[in-house]
Amino acid sequence: MEKNRLEAFSDGVLAIIITIMVLELKVPHGVELEALIPVLPVFLSYVLSFLYIAIYWNNHHHMFHATKRVSGGILWANLHLLFWLSLFPFSTAWMGENHLAPIPTAAYGVVLLMAAIAYYVLQQTIIASQGRDSLLKSAIGRDWKGKLSPVLYLAAIPLAFVSPWIASGIYTFVALIWLIPDRRIERALGTQEH
Amino acid sequence: MEKNRLEAFSDGVLAIIITIMVLELKVPHGVELEALIPVLPVFLSYVLSFLYIAIYWNNHHHMFHATKRVSGGILWANLHLLFWLSLFPFSTAWMGENHLAPIPTAAYGVVLLMAAIAYYVLQQTIIASQGRDSLLKSAIGRDWKGKLSPVLYLAAIPLAFVSPWIASGIYTFVALIWLIPDRRIERALGTQEH
Amino acid sequence: MEKNRLEAFSDGVLAIIITIMVLELKVPHGVELEALIPVLPVFLSYVLSFLYIAIYWNNHHHMFHATKRVSGGILWANLHLLFWLSLFPFSTAWMGENHLAPIPTAAYGVVLLMAAIAYYVLQQTIIASQGRDSLLKSAIGRDWKGKLSPVLYLAAIPLAFVSPWIASGIYTFVALIWLIPDRRIERALGTQEH
Amino acid sequence: MEKNRLEAFSDGVLAIIITIMVLELKVPHGVELEALIPVLPVFLSYVLSFLYIAIYWNNHHHMFHATKRVSGGILWANLHLLFWLSLFPFSTAWMGENHLAPIPTAAYGVVLLMAAIAYYVLQQTIIASQGRDSLLKSAIGRDWKGKLSPVLYLAAIPLAFVSPWIASGIYTFVALIWLIPDRRIERALGTQEH
Repeated sequence: MEKNRLEAFSDGVLAIIITIMVLELKVPHGVELEALIPVLPVFLSYVLSFLYIAIYWNNHHHMFHATKRVSGGILWANLHLLFWLSLFPFSTAWMGENHLAPIPTAAYGVVLLMAAIAYYVLQQTIIASQGRDSLLKSAIGRDWKGKLSPVLYLAAIPLAFVSPWIASGIYTFVALIWLIPDRRIERALGTQEH
Repeated sequence: MEKNRLEAFSDGVLAIIITIMVLELKVPHGVELEALIPVLPVFLSYVLSFLYIAIYWNNHHHMFHATKRVSGGILWANLHLLFWLSLFPFSTAWMGENHLAPIPTAAYGVVLLMAAIAYYVLQQTIIASQGRDSLLKSAIGRDWKGKLSPVLYLAAIPLAFVSPWIASGIYTFVALIWLIPDRRIERALGTQEH
Repeated sequence: MEKNRLEAFSDGVLAIIITIMVLELKVPHGVELEALIPVLPVFLSYVLSFLYIAIYWNNHHHMFHATKRVSGGILWANLHLLFWLSLFPFSTAWMGENHLAPIPTAAYGVVLLMAAIAYYVLQQTIIASQGRDSLLKSAIGRDWKGKLSPVLYLAAIPLAFVSPWIASGIYTFVALIWLIPDRRIERALGTQEH
Repeated sequence: MEKNRLEAFSDGVLAIIITIMVLELKVPHGVELEALIPVLPVFLSYVLSFLYIAIYWNNHHHMFHATKRVSGGILWANLHLLFWLSLFPFSTAWMGENHLAPIPTAAYGVVLLMAAIAYYVLQQTIIASQGRDSLLKSAIGRDWKGKLSPVLYLAAIPLAFVSPWIASGIYTFVALIWLIPDRRIERALGTQEH
């Protein structure tokens, strides 16, 4: 039951984050199609962030599917992850409203990086609490996506000062490699449960 | 359990969308009854969008009642639907604040159309994953509402440039034909479960 | 399970309504204690509306505790109630920001009245669907609170034009008579279940 | 089941409070790093308030884990706690936007104090309803944190007029002593259930 409540709270926070980001899509004053042009970069940032929050929700979902017991450490590692994800509406709006200026684009990457680290810490905390026969550990395997993502963010942050388009291209690329849901966990669980 | 969490997350997002739309009802500065007049078109747009989100929640509810297992594909098809529904507050406010100007009214229809397509894709994804004896497939039958709605939206979008009143009349008409909850699914489930 | 999802969605909407109302408490620009004075009427309106939403949540909770099956009619009667409750942030802010001017104070009463009617309709829909041995019907008994409240709102609305203080006094009085949770339902359930 | 719904509603409200606070992080107009400087005190206030809401959620979680039955009194004591917590976004923004001016900093402490008192009242209401063998009572033991916190807030409020830094230092200190989750309850439950 404890696990259910942690999942419900996380779902609530993620549902709110993903939805209030849309409040940054300020309603344009004009009624011409051109009135939408300044909204476009904000809209594209929104799409990217929606994708990221959706991926986090999806992976969070799979991760806790492979978790039986919730400890105090897991609770706080989870809240730490939610903290960084809660900064998405801010970093998304700053990047979007400034049409991908270098510093806001780099700042967006910093939030992505911190969220990725927080996710990794949460994952390790769960694995540590599960001990040797950790279902999650065997499920994630070598976890190349989890290890590659922060490296790519780290590369993208300085590259934002060369070209924000390269940086945001990397952010989009990382989202796309995650879009494929973590079938490894599904498979590992499948051999145990289904 | 997986299904419960998908439902809980969707309920959360829909509850937030339906509620934050009301934030676009800007509190008027005046204290006279006339101060409510400029709020009226925003209010009517809010009523229409409230109805649409309520219908989507209701049908989503019935659809997942007829769904046993959730796959990765269903998760993403569901998030895709939530994405388009999350644009309702924006499109509602743009249409309402501009007193049904042609382009915002057409844009509202585009969001309705994309949400209807996303709902259809989600439905087909569930049916495909359920295989030959799909409970959902037999429940929805010929699905004339699901097929008629996008056609009507497609007609309404260009008609918004002739008269926004015709377009918004069609949007309202489609909402009304959906208001009758999907008794077919209730019936099909009834013969199996109750 | 159907009932659970209706409750979860209603809880979500009520939780959001009760919380976003606080966004109307605009952060004052000054740092003196006097800076809080213009916030005071908005704050008091917030307290009253918080109380009302809390009472609705509480009674909704008891009502569905005495409900076993959810029909399409109940779903829509519930959404109808949520619609009127969703207007609380708007009517609260309009009344509060205008320091209880007559028309906003009357408008607040209209929203209260419509919500009370919607609650009554929901209750009757549940009772009708439960048939002769309706647990809810026996639980609410003569339902004097449910019948008195709309009468008091109806009296308060025109009185807002005489004195907004009388009207808001009546709104507060009705909240206080509801504050006592519906022990009748608890008792009726208690004899059956506990 | 009653308990589940109270927990779900509380989770919803807490999830919304923790997330809408981020809306006070106004997106800066500039694109330079310096544009973030005025955001910094708001950001630090946000971090502190996030921590507090997370602690309340965590302790609320443990408290209701040790609660079997929910009475009307508990429902209202819980809503009373949620009311004070709902003022966090307001008090956080007022303190943050004014760079810890004395009165806003003291006001932040008043809200902290009222929430602590509300938490204490809720705890006592649960213990009273559980009677002599109260699981919660034995779990919290001497409850030195619960008794020390309001005393520290009471000291910090006047100290805000001497130096807001001392006051906010005390607020941070109290948060840190709570950060350690209530292992006593975990232990007490552990001996009973696990």
